[in-house]
Amino acid sequence: MYRKEIKVTDCTIRDGGLINKWQFSDELVRRVFLAVNESGVDYMEIGYRASKKMFDPKEYGPWRFSTDEKIREIIQDTPLKVKLGVMVDIGRVESEDIAQCSESPLDVIRVATYLKDIDKAIALANECDAKGYETFINIMAISSVSDADLAIGLKQVDAETNVTAVNIVDSFGALYSESVHHLVKIYQENLSKREVGMHAHNNQQLGFANTIEAIRKGANYLDATISGIGRGAGNCPLELLLGFLKNPKFNLEPVLEALEDTFLNLRKEIEWGYLIPYMITGILNEHPRTAIALRQSERKDKYVEFYREMTTPECICE
Amino acid sequence: MYRKEIKVTDCTIRDGGLINKWQFSDELVRRVFLAVNESGVDYMEIGYRASKKMFDPKEYGPWRFSTDEKIREIIQDTPLKVKLGVMVDIGRVESEDIAQCSESPLDVIRVATYLKDIDKAIALANECDAKGYETFINIMAISSVSDADLAIGLKQVDAETNVTAVNIVDSFGALYSESVHHLVKIYQENLSKREVGMHAHNNQQLGFANTIEAIRKGANYLDATISGIGRGAGNCPLELLLGFLKNPKFNLEPVLEALEDTFLNLRKEIEWGYLIPYMITGILNEHPRTAIALRQSERKDKYVEFYREMTTPECICE
Repeated sequence: MYRKEIKVTDCTIRDGGLINKWQFSDELVRRVFLAVNESGVDYMEIGYRASKKMFDPKEYGPWRFSTDEKIREIIQDTPLKVKLGVMVDIGRVESEDIAQCSESPLDVIRVATYLKDIDKAIALANECDAKGYETFINIMAISSVSDADLAIGLKQVDAETNVTAVNIVDSFGALYSESVHHLVKIYQENLSKREVGMHAHNNQQLGFANTIEAIRKGANYLDATISGIGRGAGNCPLELLLGFLKNPKFNLEPVLEALEDTFLNLRKEIEWGYLIPYMITGILNEHPRTAIALRQSERKDKYVEFYREMTTPECICE
Repeated sequence: MYRKEIKVTDCTIRDGGLINKWQFSDELVRRVFLAVNESGVDYMEIGYRASKKMFDPKEYGPWRFSTDEKIREIIQDTPLKVKLGVMVDIGRVESEDIAQCSESPLDVIRVATYLKDIDKAIALANECDAKGYETFINIMAISSVSDADLAIGLKQVDAETNVTAVNIVDSFGALYSESVHHLVKIYQENLSKREVGMHAHNNQQLGFANTIEAIRKGANYLDATISGIGRGAGNCPLELLLGFLKNPKFNLEPVLEALEDTFLNLRKEIEWGYLIPYMITGILNEHPRTAIALRQSERKDKYVEFYREMTTPECICE
């Protein structure tokens, strides 16, 4: 699949940090940065930008905040091929946390939002745009919104922002190919000036497959992480995506090197990827939080018990 | 996805045995049989049927041979809901190894073949048909055959056999959705009296996804294994397929139970599933044998070295 418009965003540290509260060593983050920078990947979302008033730096690692200063410590004097970005959540970041783009090592700020908060997301994206950043909006939990509400929200983003792309975010890992096709179509019909992006989750081993399906229907902005690292079942693996995309600008080898020298060990320390409890929440179109809690308990492999709990309503009401 | 024509074949022991020379304990095989029998799955392919003249029973476990006697030891007096089958390879089984169907606990015999051997496969399928078995043909290494040759072979199977279905077998785990769609179409165009089946491999985490794509285009016979067990990257996981298929005849719980009480431990003993060397052979449309050899060596995680070996031709000839 070679289409020159396709852009890939690596979210390894940002999404991977959801597992361990962003407590990665500087060495690991620099390792990922160097691999991504050499791989021809277009964007690297290095972490969340959040206010230190809202999250305790004793509990959360540096990539919950991703300060400009910390980012500069990672880049050092490496020539930048990749554009650097952070993700912001509505209500968890303040104006003072975001400098003018010209004074920051960042190029990009991406706003994560639920559809119901789209007005706040638009305001935050526009604030970042006014400071000179390229902006994006990720609409989370897309498998639980109505087509009609989604169309209204997308039209608003299209008319009221300068975002480059709006991402489909399959937070629950519940989408199948036909639902991906359907969502890309709704996005395209309601976005005249914005590209469509895809952020897939791997609860049903469909993270990569659903990313391909989005590409086939015209999505050009694609999220992936090395080894598919990410909360719960994780994401579309970057190595698979680069293996599929035939654009000669991409180079798989730096990613394979990082897999070999860094991610094999990381996998011994923290858990992510396809596991039955995540499959169950994916099939049921539920947030993975119950499955994550199960995996952190002594019952972590009690699949049948968990499945029964998830499929037996406490009461059946009218 | 509910389509009453859909039939699922479990190949857990048959394909899983490719990892450990079919040396499963009777207890494990009975556990899988009970789970599959309770799950509503239509067929269970319990092993290969091969001649003991050709394979040494000291080296190969019972499911390389899957004698009628051994199968009866597993079933005991359990009422059969599932149809039982074995796979045969051309040239590795003799007439005397296959009794009349009326004297066997088996219902089904499936012939595995490369396209070049389709005449031999037809002869063997017809021999089994004459003995009263329901027959199938699996065409292996489908990603390496030409459309024209495939069409000729399929027309022959259509005209000259009584097989229920012919399976697309993605031996190299190299297919993407568009190639699956294309192959299902060729099968449909050339099979007027036979159903289309799908046997996917998981080298690129597309085993389940490609099975869905085959279903969407009309394939009704689907192969899967519990936990995706199978040689190398393994297969389409049965638990995902049953979670997707909405036919009320299927029951996920017996499979979840087996995952919990049996497959968690089995995974500590033998290795299968998505791993980078299998991804590499999948991307390159190569047989996984080089990756399997790598995984059995001390270099098992030398991804970059392996990738370079696989992508650097020894010589570039005219």
